[in-house]
Amino acid sequence: MRIKFFTTGGTIDKVYFDAKSEFEVGPPQVLEVVKEANVTFEYDIESILQKDSLDMTQSDRDLVRQKVAAEPCPHIVVTHGTDTMVKTARALMNIAGKTIVLTGSMQPARFRSTDAVFNIGTAVGAVQSLTCGVYIVMNGRVFDPRRTRKNVEQNCFEEMDLADA
Amino acid sequence: MRIKFFTTGGTIDKVYFDAKSEFEVGPPQVLEVVKEANVTFEYDIESILQKDSLDMTQSDRDLVRQKVAAEPCPHIVVTHGTDTMVKTARALMNIAGKTIVLTGSMQPARFRSTDAVFNIGTAVGAVQSLTCGVYIVMNGRVFDPRRTRKNVEQNCFEEMDLADA
Amino acid sequence: MRIKFFTTGGTIDKVYFDAKSEFEVGPPQVLEVVKEANVTFEYDIESILQKDSLDMTQSDRDLVRQKVAAEPCPHIVVTHGTDTMVKTARALMNIAGKTIVLTGSMQPARFRSTDAVFNIGTAVGAVQSLTCGVYIVMNGRVFDPRRTRKNVEQNCFEEMDLADA
Amino acid sequence: MRIKFFTTGGTIDKVYFDAKSEFEVGPPQVLEVVKEANVTFEYDIESILQKDSLDMTQSDRDLVRQKVAAEPCPHIVVTHGTDTMVKTARALMNIAGKTIVLTGSMQPARFRSTDAVFNIGTAVGAVQSLTCGVYIVMNGRVFDPRRTRKNVEQNCFEEMDLADA
Repeated sequence: MRIKFFTTGGTIDKVYFDAKSEFEVGPPQVLEVVKEANVTFEYDIESILQKDSLDMTQSDRDLVRQKVAAEPCPHIVVTHGTDTMVKTARALMNIAGKTIVLTGSMQPARFRSTDAVFNIGTAVGAVQSLTCGVYIVMNGRVFDPRRTRKNVEQNCFEEMDLADA
Repeated sequence: MRIKFFTTGGTIDKVYFDAKSEFEVGPPQVLEVVKEANVTFEYDIESILQKDSLDMTQSDRDLVRQKVAAEPCPHIVVTHGTDTMVKTARALMNIAGKTIVLTGSMQPARFRSTDAVFNIGTAVGAVQSLTCGVYIVMNGRVFDPRRTRKNVEQNCFEEMDLADA
Repeated sequence: MRIKFFTTGGTIDKVYFDAKSEFEVGPPQVLEVVKEANVTFEYDIESILQKDSLDMTQSDRDLVRQKVAAEPCPHIVVTHGTDTMVKTARALMNIAGKTIVLTGSMQPARFRSTDAVFNIGTAVGAVQSLTCGVYIVMNGRVFDPRRTRKNVEQNCFEEMDLADA
Repeated sequence: MRIKFFTTGGTIDKVYFDAKSEFEVGPPQVLEVVKEANVTFEYDIESILQKDSLDMTQSDRDLVRQKVAAEPCPHIVVTHGTDTMVKTARALMNIAGKTIVLTGSMQPARFRSTDAVFNIGTAVGAVQSLTCGVYIVMNGRVFDPRRTRKNVEQNCFEEMDLADA
């Protein structure tokens, strides 16, 4: 079993630079997460972007789609900021022969209390178990991007009625 | 989506009692893990045993099977010690209509560095994505219990040839 | 033994608000730190400010001095941002009968890897052991604020020659 | 400023070996603690013993005393199991010209929630601030070993009346 991780930035990769008193998107945290978990599947991690997902443009999404479409590995996990994760997931529809899971976190992976480790774990479990298609994994659930939204007030992802989609 | 967690003890639940200078199996850690991950699926946690898996007897396994078979929820995660996880998984074969995932950890969930959070995440992703059957989730992989063993030297689970099973 | 903690904000108290994709100074972290350490001395925690220390004004420093001077407890720890900690320490000189220790951290207390817990520990050890006066505790050392500066490049505090002070 | 750390084992250094399903005293954790805290004082760490303190013998204590007495650095921190820390502290009395602080922890340093980091911080703050003598640093307090005991029920150190000493 082999998984390709693409990283695009987002909260999951936020680090703190004391010299600038600023938080910024840093290097991908997924490597530290899978190393600590002592995973034995083969994997490859490629950083496409290091952006807050609110700053992602259409050409950024085109680039992500191009990278995912060109990737020969059929099991793909994309780490992404939560604010526009649904938008990017929809931009990845209709790529044949691949199971694509997007995940991220509400609290940075570097925090002592974070959902990042659990979410990457859930994504890894889902990506090797689901049929081909695009999925969002957040809050321990597997969502269909066509019927999902981030609930900003409650700080979680939720299903929505098709009428609202 | 709803998941039923059964806990049986094992390394994942080991805590330290300074007064006795001893590590023992403590209360189930899965509750703290799913709370920190801010999961939004429904769940229920039931402790069946609090044992080191080397101490599990045949009647313990009979009890686990009885509990799992009687459980109406079709998505079941069993946390378990690693040493005899494969044995218990095989004892849970042929229960119709349920997806049953066994997981655990090599380092206690209370440790700062642990595989417990990731493994429970992977189990949660797998249990809602796989067809009915019994699976072991360790080291980021989904294993068939009939062809799996714990490699004690390398401290991980691995597939084995059917001839060795 | 009794310690009064005054908190003023700074990196040590930075938290992340996903809804705003922003880090801000949150509630004082010192309470969680001393609870986890299971301290048995008496203590009281009072929040004076919740500011990045670069944003502290002269009137903020006047307020801190007024609070510290009016405090009857002779053992005082002030948590503070690192950028202007030296300036505030100097503004607290010449308050008779008190041992005043300023500390903070380079990485937020909420981070998995942080100097906050250690630094508060060092401050607690120093404040009950030193004679009256004002001290800065950072990087495991006790500094005299008249001869100390933050080295931004190396991200640590250091002594400086009196000629540079 | 320079600190010499001697380590003797105890809960602070307990690690978990999954292959043996056992916790044992492992390598000294103080190195990881001071590295993460980004300390800038000079230090040296020397492991004398790796024992549960209940297993320490008189000849073990003689060895610790011999090492401490022969150490040229005047600032000495000894990490030690809590059960017999007081006994060893008393065995270190009357070594001229040195400030000697014993500390340890109730929960292993490798635990996610531990008093180890805070206690080492407190010991570091105390050892450079106190006059020559032998001290115990636990629960955020500096104790005189002649009037201190571990309260096993309440899992903390406390002063006792001289009559009980």
